[in-house]
Amino acid sequence: MELVRIQSRNNEAVKTFCKLSESRKARRESGRFTLEGLRLCADCAQSGFTVETLFLTEAAKEKGGERVETLLSSAKTAYCISESVAEKLSDTVTTQGVFSIVQMPENTEFSVKKGGRYLALEQVQNPQNLGAAARTAEALGIAGLIVSGGCDRFNPKALRASMGSLLRLPVMQVEDLASWLKAQNETILTLATVPDMRATSICTLDFSGGAIAVVGNEGNGVSEAVLSAVRERVTIPMRGAAESLNASAAATITMWEMMR
Amino acid sequence: MELVRIQSRNNEAVKTFCKLSESRKARRESGRFTLEGLRLCADCAQSGFTVETLFLTEAAKEKGGERVETLLSSAKTAYCISESVAEKLSDTVTTQGVFSIVQMPENTEFSVKKGGRYLALEQVQNPQNLGAAARTAEALGIAGLIVSGGCDRFNPKALRASMGSLLRLPVMQVEDLASWLKAQNETILTLATVPDMRATSICTLDFSGGAIAVVGNEGNGVSEAVLSAVRERVTIPMRGAAESLNASAAATITMWEMMR
Repeated sequence: MELVRIQSRNNEAVKTFCKLSESRKARRESGRFTLEGLRLCADCAQSGFTVETLFLTEAAKEKGGERVETLLSSAKTAYCISESVAEKLSDTVTTQGVFSIVQMPENTEFSVKKGGRYLALEQVQNPQNLGAAARTAEALGIAGLIVSGGCDRFNPKALRASMGSLLRLPVMQVEDLASWLKAQNETILTLATVPDMRATSICTLDFSGGAIAVVGNEGNGVSEAVLSAVRERVTIPMRGAAESLNASAAATITMWEMMR
Repeated sequence: MELVRIQSRNNEAVKTFCKLSESRKARRESGRFTLEGLRLCADCAQSGFTVETLFLTEAAKEKGGERVETLLSSAKTAYCISESVAEKLSDTVTTQGVFSIVQMPENTEFSVKKGGRYLALEQVQNPQNLGAAARTAEALGIAGLIVSGGCDRFNPKALRASMGSLLRLPVMQVEDLASWLKAQNETILTLATVPDMRATSICTLDFSGGAIAVVGNEGNGVSEAVLSAVRERVTIPMRGAAESLNASAAATITMWEMMR
């Protein structure tokens, strides 16, 4: 298959890719996001997402393989890009030369089910933390992820850190987390983790009816509004000297205790 | 206090800093390592490490404060560096303009004590994973960390990710982990985590006599040699679809279960 070539770093499709990678607002407004990496792009196409634009370097195309075939057959438009363009698109040190622009799924809302265990992240800023939490959530079998503020689920660094888990897990963005949690209180146990040794220990809770656990922002923790909305304030008992667990470790332990 | 000024990015002290930051071999041979950031540098000086060389930008010196005073009074040599030099030394996007070259402690070996809980990392390559594991270890009250191969404990990225925990925790580098573990088997339970659902569940182990838990390399897990050396092969039960937990999440859950 002959692909249209892009040599210029100022090509319109290249500019669109960069804008979508950098700006959450641009992603939200256009309903599209970007991916980098052969596996991530191919997984995404196979999971039923619509790959709008595919960018491949000559080397990546030559190397070929099953994943490249999948991508070429599913992408609406495909370009062959120069190494210089690949460098511009890439967010990594050594790029594989595979990039795509993908349409966001139309409706990602899900209903919380009795007995399910869910993780909600409030204003978590670091894409690595969001990505790592999603990967662990998928591994442990968490039923769904709720993201409120902070880094969005289509942040390219978060997507990469999640190894694609953010595309496979049920993930819902919720604007007003406190109100949303209040509405869940009739169905399921809601709780927020706090670094306060007087709060209920996470080890003593009964998760058999399911739960939604909130982990808060890296610096400020869970907001007052959310603390007032949940039924339980819960703490992870610590014996050590560090100020507190980081958001990612707190999320890991919280999910583990819910699933244990 | 008037400090000697450095304007040139080719200054010898600047070159030494960069070499020590980049090369594990250079660190090992000279017995020195580097730190970036006001808090990390000041914590280190207060923890009794010898700060050999301090680099401060004019702005950092002007801003002053207790930590800068601590650093200036404890450093053997201090330089005032230009912003351009600070950029060269820095590994961060926005630098605070505070850097130091520090002597490694002479003897970091410790003896494993009955009842203690220890984490050993085998060939963990990613400095973020080593740093995060150390931070969680300190928070949860792990007695000591054993690092064998992979990223070394004085890697600047690992030190920063650990928020200084790598300087405060007992940390020992062990060359031949398998032999070392065999020698501990009389004192304490030794175990390695494996992604094998037929192995013993980590939830069923009795940690009351203490334990040394090994978490392996990000891609390949724990080596055959170490698997033969430990008393138990242990798994973290997973219900989900992802291939496995990443090294950092596995380390977090393992430490949590030991301390729970």
